[in-house]
Amino acid sequence: MELARPDFYKFFASRVNYMNPSPIREAVSKIAIKSRTTQVISFAAGEPDPDVLPRDLYAKLSSEIFLKVRKIVNYSPSEGIIELREEIAKFMKEYESVDTSMDRIVVTIGGSQALDIVARIMLEPGDIVVTENPSYVNTLLCWSHYGVKIVGVPMDDNGMITEKLEETLKKLKETGRKVKLVYTIPTGQNPSGITMSMDRRKHLLEIASKYDVLVVEDTAYNHLVYEPIDVKPLRSLDKEDRVIYAGSFSKVLGTGLRIGWLEAPQEIIEKIRYSKQPMDMCAPVPSQYLVTEVLKRGLFPEIKKKAIEAYKKKRDIMLEMLDKYLPGLKHTKPVAGMFILLWLPEKLDAWEFADKLLDKYNVAVIPATPFFTDGSGKNVIRMNFSMANPELIEEGVSRIAKLVKELTQ
Amino acid sequence: MELARPDFYKFFASRVNYMNPSPIREAVSKIAIKSRTTQVISFAAGEPDPDVLPRDLYAKLSSEIFLKVRKIVNYSPSEGIIELREEIAKFMKEYESVDTSMDRIVVTIGGSQALDIVARIMLEPGDIVVTENPSYVNTLLCWSHYGVKIVGVPMDDNGMITEKLEETLKKLKETGRKVKLVYTIPTGQNPSGITMSMDRRKHLLEIASKYDVLVVEDTAYNHLVYEPIDVKPLRSLDKEDRVIYAGSFSKVLGTGLRIGWLEAPQEIIEKIRYSKQPMDMCAPVPSQYLVTEVLKRGLFPEIKKKAIEAYKKKRDIMLEMLDKYLPGLKHTKPVAGMFILLWLPEKLDAWEFADKLLDKYNVAVIPATPFFTDGSGKNVIRMNFSMANPELIEEGVSRIAKLVKELTQ
Repeated sequence: MELARPDFYKFFASRVNYMNPSPIREAVSKIAIKSRTTQVISFAAGEPDPDVLPRDLYAKLSSEIFLKVRKIVNYSPSEGIIELREEIAKFMKEYESVDTSMDRIVVTIGGSQALDIVARIMLEPGDIVVTENPSYVNTLLCWSHYGVKIVGVPMDDNGMITEKLEETLKKLKETGRKVKLVYTIPTGQNPSGITMSMDRRKHLLEIASKYDVLVVEDTAYNHLVYEPIDVKPLRSLDKEDRVIYAGSFSKVLGTGLRIGWLEAPQEIIEKIRYSKQPMDMCAPVPSQYLVTEVLKRGLFPEIKKKAIEAYKKKRDIMLEMLDKYLPGLKHTKPVAGMFILLWLPEKLDAWEFADKLLDKYNVAVIPATPFFTDGSGKNVIRMNFSMANPELIEEGVSRIAKLVKELTQ
Repeated sequence: MELARPDFYKFFASRVNYMNPSPIREAVSKIAIKSRTTQVISFAAGEPDPDVLPRDLYAKLSSEIFLKVRKIVNYSPSEGIIELREEIAKFMKEYESVDTSMDRIVVTIGGSQALDIVARIMLEPGDIVVTENPSYVNTLLCWSHYGVKIVGVPMDDNGMITEKLEETLKKLKETGRKVKLVYTIPTGQNPSGITMSMDRRKHLLEIASKYDVLVVEDTAYNHLVYEPIDVKPLRSLDKEDRVIYAGSFSKVLGTGLRIGWLEAPQEIIEKIRYSKQPMDMCAPVPSQYLVTEVLKRGLFPEIKKKAIEAYKKKRDIMLEMLDKYLPGLKHTKPVAGMFILLWLPEKLDAWEFADKLLDKYNVAVIPATPFFTDGSGKNVIRMNFSMANPELIEEGVSRIAKLVKELTQ
């Protein structure tokens, strides 16, 4: 007699109810399948162009470090190898005007794990986190696993509207709700591409102090800036040790290496270490040494320069084509990052639009709806330029315009 | 006026109370510091000997794949690259007698993250997990972050005493407590080195079925077997889809690569994918391709053979020296894995002994006390042979014997 299989559903923790598939990761899978048989013009990605990344350099460095470093295939300390943490401290000084030391740094599996660990040590059901609206969907998803409530604050061209942030915190305080964190991506925000002004940054820190909340600063796009702008990381402006800095090398050196970090006050770093130890032991050690070598040899500026040149060109073309083919529609005009948000005509649904666009016109975009914290943004799509083929941007945008026309006639 | 720093402790989630430092990771840090100025004979590790790992091969393969694979520095699907998942399915067929497919496999950051993800989708405060007593301390620590209660079942030379497992499950059922998982490391267990007999494996599965619990099988040491023994993975004996298989390449190919996996029923794999997506996006992609190449080119058996030869020799020396210098003390006699458990005279405390041994005799061992689920094992130490220098094992054991003598006279 064949025995029955278990009823798996009764073994799941209640938090699986919050575990929804990432709309980006799922869209990317769908696009990958379609791409096998059809040429898809993709504006769906959120990462560097592989043809801009220095794979030949990585081949050479990898070969060298595997031969040179005896313990490269052994565990590293959970907080990361000393050499990398020292290089990151120097990097933060040089590029971010932040005075820190390796004792305040833990190396993570990209910026994603950095944000998961913050949640793991700080967030529990009933807590409130305040973010920009819209904000990065993977952080919203990850933190929702911890049962928290996310409250969004609207943005304008200067980033999170900090007057609205204060109103929000005030209102929540009056109702006795516990706000722990303000999460922000101040530069080249995902998904909007917007960069927060210096005044707003300073104001945000004042408000955080006044309402006694901590700030999590996601700096993933800090090194992809296309115009001379006067902004500094919140962490460098912070005089109270109130900012937890989440760093990442993904957007310049490559997402696949999975090297990010957290920089935070000692009291927090200790908990981060204890949290991370049994989670995964340590970040991949060959990747840690590879990034160390890139930093040590002073190769970061060159790699960054090449990326900025390539992405600026693509951004310029995409903005030009949006103005040419869709002059009536609102979109953001990023000075940093990888993304443009486009508002479709109000009656269009972003999910349906993205599906039709892929099915009928072989163009891929990401519906931005799940990035919104309040169910708004139903007609907004996210367009990536960093990985777009510059030769095909015009064609892609013209097809978007065609579908918009079809659906609104 | 200098502003005050926040009171960080009020921002922590209550689960940080369960986040204790890993005794192994902390001991290893302490030993590393001492090793800078003194030659330490270490039996403290839990990983392959770097001099046995094929770093020259990895140098060559890395260089090739960085040049060949265009998207090697981009994200992979969260569940891992297709080629690696296909190779893992073949590997499980060939080495583990398990019929599976890539759809049931998710690549993880080593076996550690595999076990963290199982907890993330299944465990919540109040749940009970049953393990061998003693069991792997990092799993105990990791799962304690989820607020579960761990109940240990005693072992003998044939592994977990399954009659005691049944008694335990029966008693817990009568008190209405919810047991979700039985966690076992059936082959070369950490910390004991014990391997579960086939009869016990079959009995464990019968009991799991009878009491309707799932089984998590940690197979980290399945490929380091030093004697011809007749055992198969629980997963290959399971007819009900009741076993979640946690795999790892760490112990043969190197821990630093951070490549492990979970193999599980579709219903569970779906939740694993959704859980993993925002946790870290994906496992390090160069490591994924490196392991893929090793498997594809059929290099695993050779690497494994070399490891087994080296570790068997070290195990034999360590067992011989224990009998020579400490004939009166009980220890395990592993046929697999990397560890021997040694019972010191009852009045000795393992923590104090390990501290003194390092301070006075420059020999490092791990106190096994935190591996015990019930506060027992106060006089037990874990000795690793895989990373020991064979020339120094006799000297190390003789110093242990000297300290035992000193402390018991």
